[in-house]
Amino acid sequence: MLLHRLAVAAAKTSLRPSLARNSRTIAPTMTGITTARFGSSVAKDEEATTTIVDNSQEENPTELPTAPESTYSMKKSGTPSPWAVFDAWGAGADIVDPLSPAMEKLLESESVKIPMTPEEQATLAGETEILDAYDQFLQRKSSVHFGYPYNLMYNHSELYEFMKYSINNLGDPFVPSNYSVHSRQFECAVIDFFADLWKMEKDSYWGYVTTSGTEGNLHGILLARECHPDAILYTSQETHYSVFKAARYYRMDCQSIPTLPMGEIDYDLLEKAISRNLDRDIIINVNIGTTVKGAVDNLDRILRTLQVLNVPRERFHIHCDGALFALMMPFVDYAPEISFQKPIDSIAVSGHKMLGCPMPCGIALCRKEHVEKVEQHIDYLNSVDTTIMGSRNGQAALYLWYSLRKKGVEGIKRDVEHCMETARYLRDKLTEAGFTCRVNDLSSTVVLERPLDENLVKRWQLACEEDIAHVVVMPNVTRNKIDLFVKELTECKDKLGRIRPVRENSPLRQLHSLAWGGSVVQPFGTN
Amino acid sequence: MLLHRLAVAAAKTSLRPSLARNSRTIAPTMTGITTARFGSSVAKDEEATTTIVDNSQEENPTELPTAPESTYSMKKSGTPSPWAVFDAWGAGADIVDPLSPAMEKLLESESVKIPMTPEEQATLAGETEILDAYDQFLQRKSSVHFGYPYNLMYNHSELYEFMKYSINNLGDPFVPSNYSVHSRQFECAVIDFFADLWKMEKDSYWGYVTTSGTEGNLHGILLARECHPDAILYTSQETHYSVFKAARYYRMDCQSIPTLPMGEIDYDLLEKAISRNLDRDIIINVNIGTTVKGAVDNLDRILRTLQVLNVPRERFHIHCDGALFALMMPFVDYAPEISFQKPIDSIAVSGHKMLGCPMPCGIALCRKEHVEKVEQHIDYLNSVDTTIMGSRNGQAALYLWYSLRKKGVEGIKRDVEHCMETARYLRDKLTEAGFTCRVNDLSSTVVLERPLDENLVKRWQLACEEDIAHVVVMPNVTRNKIDLFVKELTECKDKLGRIRPVRENSPLRQLHSLAWGGSVVQPFGTN
Repeated sequence: MLLHRLAVAAAKTSLRPSLARNSRTIAPTMTGITTARFGSSVAKDEEATTTIVDNSQEENPTELPTAPESTYSMKKSGTPSPWAVFDAWGAGADIVDPLSPAMEKLLESESVKIPMTPEEQATLAGETEILDAYDQFLQRKSSVHFGYPYNLMYNHSELYEFMKYSINNLGDPFVPSNYSVHSRQFECAVIDFFADLWKMEKDSYWGYVTTSGTEGNLHGILLARECHPDAILYTSQETHYSVFKAARYYRMDCQSIPTLPMGEIDYDLLEKAISRNLDRDIIINVNIGTTVKGAVDNLDRILRTLQVLNVPRERFHIHCDGALFALMMPFVDYAPEISFQKPIDSIAVSGHKMLGCPMPCGIALCRKEHVEKVEQHIDYLNSVDTTIMGSRNGQAALYLWYSLRKKGVEGIKRDVEHCMETARYLRDKLTEAGFTCRVNDLSSTVVLERPLDENLVKRWQLACEEDIAHVVVMPNVTRNKIDLFVKELTECKDKLGRIRPVRENSPLRQLHSLAWGGSVVQPFGTN
Repeated sequence: MLLHRLAVAAAKTSLRPSLARNSRTIAPTMTGITTARFGSSVAKDEEATTTIVDNSQEENPTELPTAPESTYSMKKSGTPSPWAVFDAWGAGADIVDPLSPAMEKLLESESVKIPMTPEEQATLAGETEILDAYDQFLQRKSSVHFGYPYNLMYNHSELYEFMKYSINNLGDPFVPSNYSVHSRQFECAVIDFFADLWKMEKDSYWGYVTTSGTEGNLHGILLARECHPDAILYTSQETHYSVFKAARYYRMDCQSIPTLPMGEIDYDLLEKAISRNLDRDIIINVNIGTTVKGAVDNLDRILRTLQVLNVPRERFHIHCDGALFALMMPFVDYAPEISFQKPIDSIAVSGHKMLGCPMPCGIALCRKEHVEKVEQHIDYLNSVDTTIMGSRNGQAALYLWYSLRKKGVEGIKRDVEHCMETARYLRDKLTEAGFTCRVNDLSSTVVLERPLDENLVKRWQLACEEDIAHVVVMPNVTRNKIDLFVKELTECKDKLGRIRPVRENSPLRQLHSLAWGGSVVQPFGTN
């Protein structure tokens, strides 16, 4: 496929073993469910350097250049994802007014409660009245959503009538069950698409449509543990909490590796951690986009590390948490390649994120040989138990299939381009307006200083972590909304000021690091 | 509540310690993920006795009395759940014809595949054409479904428009997240309803809407393990596979206790198993309706056993797997009471089973104090991580809320009555027609000998286990369909004969046990 050509070339060169490696000693291994924090003093030192340099460059944020390096074209400004192949219902269009107090009251617990007697029922508002208010609520909330990586722009109205049916793909997607009200044919088409996208050979893969990104991670880590019962799970500190949750649920030893300022795993510390436990099998979770900063761990560098340490293929399992970005990267030109042609074992991606779906869902994909090790035949299902859930949402598979068919590869590519470009537009607007803010390469997640007005945070539904917030630019995030958002942020700053970093090596201070490159507004109260 | 009055009285008397207990020795404890099969020779002995007595009573099945003990009224015959409060779309109505070969072709993998290029796309059928065939497929399959405990009869058309929105209740239902496109108010109303049904005090409970019955069991068993890290999990051999899966995922010691012929746990063997491990904490999974036979474990007897063994309250956790029946039992007059007024800890129930929902879902409910022990604050969500999934389907909560509001307590009660009565109608028709078949007290699951025609099994989507099959009578199973089903079974029998029990103590032989009481047709080839 054309999307991967150059990435393959890049990957090939990067597979050569690294010659220079850090040999500093690190903290003792911690076993059980721990978050070992190796080498935090190192990160602090670098941060100090960063602060000085940035400070000298950018004393006055209003004098910043207007990001000449950005790739976006101004003529696209203000349009709701102009490349969407099919009409969306309008999450990208105008901002909808908040609810009236009367409507809000209809959604309160006293109104929506379920009556236990006909007498109680008579005292409550009717369902239709409540649902009218709820529709207004959802329109409003969808129109001012910036913080979570959910594409709210889609149109599945042709599928609504299928909500008449209890579509359940119980058991394995590839093994028919006696329950026939299913959507396995659509689920298999979706899995085949992702297998092709990530370059798996026919008959070499297995996968299923999950109920969320978490289920995909729970499945990938479970497979890994079943194939490597005594392994240590290595993952970066900025990994999504579902991976640590998997370790806790499954009673696995887990080592949490510190990150570089931009959010990638600290590769040298990862190598040290592994090298100190070479008697144990190795499970590595690779973040294809971290939750908060959208940082992509360098898969090739991690594979090179394993090669340098002479770890045989049968002694490691690589799981890729690609929640948002595993569906974006194949459509970013010159991006590193996520591919089963490399020695990786499982990938999880969300369906309600980049693609967009009214219900959370995702895809778990892995090498078939792994799942064959763990499958159990269930007579009652006339199928095998290979999935985490038994009953499985067949609607979700149908919705994913429909989106993929309607958008097509070209449609997804245009959506991805919109996100990448618009993210840089937001970053530059924020920087111009005097806010500390960053975007990782390969990412549409704009990380910024946390606004001091919690109402503004709630209104725009920003996801926050300590002293930073982020906006994940999705197809429904448009330039006119961005302009309003930056205006409100500026008003908030004028009224309440800017947040100070909450601690020495806080996320906000890390935004100031030199490692990001480019221009940045210095965090308030630092020097 | 009126529903529980007599059950409470019954429970009170049954809490007195048992005086006579079996003191026979049993097989050694097995630890790890094992299925210890205690005392199978005992079951065999009983079976032998059963066979002789039944044989003498029912030499000629055609002479059987027409079940005078049944409670159904013939005037209701042939109606699709006549008590449904709101109109259903017709799963209970006529049987829809199978698809034409042309339509079937539209649903094959070559047709539904997702194209990677516009050229490939041009070779494929359009989505609308495919979806038309799929609609026909689902209508057909929904109209001849007998085997799984899914209520296919509902009408949520007022909610279809909400599929425009990415409704996601990520994190805890009771802790608002910054993501505001949610349905938490509806989810909490649903949880409050179930908490009331199972008699929990205000502020004493916690729960959430899950993606399936499995997630509810995974959650309940996880809570149990977190509160009792070194406990042994006890559960009957006929437990749903998700409970054994939980033990495997969570690396817990699990003991699988043999069952009585009707499918309940063997209480004496449970007591023996516990008494031999009194140094370990105790987790018991109580089946409120087993998957295959619909057998309800006697909760009061299990609680009495713990009392007799002097197990302090803080050393055990009782999880109730109430997938189908925890929503039926409160509506069955004089049924044993499932209640948190008793020393139980968590319940899981499915939403797509008795209530009916286009996507699998369920409710997990537990004592609040347990979940407080395991919650983890997640900054990114501005919520706490208490649920198994992170992103959570907000549509499902809305659908459940709507069903509960539209049906009401009285509507559910009428649905339950229909199921119980119609199950007995089916049992009697099958017995009259010369088939071995049984229904447990408190259950609408009709267990019968497996038909020898696999096409018939597939057409009616029967769930099978070795030499038995079952029909779970749900609101969409009607007497006219039953009559057709029995007619087809009879034709199959005339053509292919009847199945012989596949082994000495097979499920089919157990159907013949005296323990069930009443009349039964002797399994073919036994004496």
